[in-house]
Amino acid sequence: MEVVQVLHMNKGNGDTSYAKNSTVQRKIISFGKTIIEEALLELSSNYDIDSMGIADLGCSTGPNTLSVISEIMDIVRATSGHLRRPVPEFRLFFNDLYSNDFNYLFMLLPAFYKMLKEEKGIGLASSQCFISGVPGSFYGRLFPSNSLHFVYSFSSLHWLSQVPVGLESYAVKHLNKGKVYISKSSPQSVVNAYSSRFQSDFSQFIKSRSQELVPGGRMVLSFLGRKSIDPTTEDGCYQWELLAEALMSLVKEGLIEEEKVASFNAPYYAPCAEELKVEILKEGSFIIDRLEAFEVDWDGGAVADTHTEQGKMTVGERVAKTIRAVVESMLESHFRMGQDTMDVLFIKFAEIVGNHLSRTRTKYINFVISLVRKG
Amino acid sequence: MEVVQVLHMNKGNGDTSYAKNSTVQRKIISFGKTIIEEALLELSSNYDIDSMGIADLGCSTGPNTLSVISEIMDIVRATSGHLRRPVPEFRLFFNDLYSNDFNYLFMLLPAFYKMLKEEKGIGLASSQCFISGVPGSFYGRLFPSNSLHFVYSFSSLHWLSQVPVGLESYAVKHLNKGKVYISKSSPQSVVNAYSSRFQSDFSQFIKSRSQELVPGGRMVLSFLGRKSIDPTTEDGCYQWELLAEALMSLVKEGLIEEEKVASFNAPYYAPCAEELKVEILKEGSFIIDRLEAFEVDWDGGAVADTHTEQGKMTVGERVAKTIRAVVESMLESHFRMGQDTMDVLFIKFAEIVGNHLSRTRTKYINFVISLVRKG
Repeated sequence: MEVVQVLHMNKGNGDTSYAKNSTVQRKIISFGKTIIEEALLELSSNYDIDSMGIADLGCSTGPNTLSVISEIMDIVRATSGHLRRPVPEFRLFFNDLYSNDFNYLFMLLPAFYKMLKEEKGIGLASSQCFISGVPGSFYGRLFPSNSLHFVYSFSSLHWLSQVPVGLESYAVKHLNKGKVYISKSSPQSVVNAYSSRFQSDFSQFIKSRSQELVPGGRMVLSFLGRKSIDPTTEDGCYQWELLAEALMSLVKEGLIEEEKVASFNAPYYAPCAEELKVEILKEGSFIIDRLEAFEVDWDGGAVADTHTEQGKMTVGERVAKTIRAVVESMLESHFRMGQDTMDVLFIKFAEIVGNHLSRTRTKYINFVISLVRKG
Repeated sequence: MEVVQVLHMNKGNGDTSYAKNSTVQRKIISFGKTIIEEALLELSSNYDIDSMGIADLGCSTGPNTLSVISEIMDIVRATSGHLRRPVPEFRLFFNDLYSNDFNYLFMLLPAFYKMLKEEKGIGLASSQCFISGVPGSFYGRLFPSNSLHFVYSFSSLHWLSQVPVGLESYAVKHLNKGKVYISKSSPQSVVNAYSSRFQSDFSQFIKSRSQELVPGGRMVLSFLGRKSIDPTTEDGCYQWELLAEALMSLVKEGLIEEEKVASFNAPYYAPCAEELKVEILKEGSFIIDRLEAFEVDWDGGAVADTHTEQGKMTVGERVAKTIRAVVESMLESHFRMGQDTMDVLFIKFAEIVGNHLSRTRTKYINFVISLVRKG
């Protein structure tokens, strides 16, 4: 499976869209903000930048995308005011894979430019802000050398560039039978295939950014991982364990083929802190300024509030919706299942998740790393 | 009507899509190519550029978009080889309005990058080519100052930024009754409203580009116009005359309201060479290297070839399809007509065009202007 071609968040702004189901990601962004603020303060204090290149890697599409960049601009403006310097020109780049719904994002821009002008006095006409979309994989070069000052990426780097090579043949041999990611029952060869794919991807990511960022440039990365060195630990993979369970229940009902589950492996990896440090140090261009891990509820810690659509749902339903918005494109392309079967799958998955969370509060582990490009 | 919001070529690649119905534009591009080649040779010979910024303004979406940029890269590569210089890094920018189908364009990029690598040895990985989408109106700033070396725009500058102010009230007073653009029967006030909107838009375009292009930078613009100074001349507006006739026949059949036709005015203007020269000279940053006009058949000079879908159609049908792909989004948004009524309209229009062309060979006049940013 070519991830570059099929992975995208659910498009538009309908009921199952990513734009409407990104509470977890919003929660994660709010955790990352103080670290972004710190990084930008350091950057602006140490360098007098007249044209600032800022890139959102894996921007997806929806309100989160523009609210983060808007806050970044606020921080830079405030810092400039504090330092009695002119606000730099902003060159803003939104990156995601080719199949991302850029149309939806771009249609939000007229209102965004209007807000910038009215609330912040920043105009396109006065040439203070230039926005572009940069489609392509961040596991390779995307920008000219030394063209960026600040790079951030939220909830994207846990996606691999592709399903680890060889897993299809393991699937044929039923080595990871009934599972869609690393599991307690996975043989070491499956674990190794995943971790070496991650190492290769992550080091490509670091290397590409080291060429694109100016010396002293900053990067804040936030993505899912795990606490323990053991890749089969529950906080790193249990959502996939339960999705596999839901898929296998559809196999029992004859709705999908067992072979199809055997050959599906998520292009995902939840690394531990040690794996991250190794790759960053090996590449050698970045100083690790911060590396923090925090827990996030599977439903983003949404409060049951019967006045909102979201509040009326069970916790299982909420988790199922956020995960569906993210993985549906992948499942569709692999299983070729229709909307009805997809609905059945996620009703089942919501039940399984609900049962699981009533027994134990498994949480996601989210890393935030702040890096400085060496001078 | 906010043109920025509603004007876009028909999306996707279906039967009425712009991607499948852009023969006229392809023809126009082929005329413009020698002038582009000449401009690029001058540019590359006089300047040693290591990173070349190239922008396609009003890129639309479809095979034309990528074939032009591909030929531009060929010319630059050949010139570099000839001058024994390394091929520059390419920074390619595709611009169009927010509602353009960028998703469709971006989905063509993986195959495009593959072709670049295989046929030209230019890779994203080897950081020789960076592509981005820049949504927004070219009647204003789109790029940072001095960031571009070559700008081109095909079949876009005849679209105004908006319907000339006041035309709605003229419509109420029935001054341009039953017409959708300048016509022989239009009062001088309507003609003036159109020409002053064009002057203002075109001068904004020239001014914005003068800031974005480096000194010595080049610009090749190709768009529809007219030969005579008289704006009611047939080659400048007759396609709109016939579209108005088709719309009025739908009024007679009770399918649309007469008031709606009265209040519709195309955000379009076909200038003459004198009007172009005046604005370019007034702005003062550009030298006019070439200004040429040539005739194009309404159907792009397609040859009747019964082996192709296009060849099986009558000339009227071919013209109707190319015009539909371009104006449908505007008509939809103004008339709120369904697909059935739209089909009826363009069947009628095809008939009217066929009748007209059987009597006289009205052609489009297309300008190609090559400009040099003063040093």
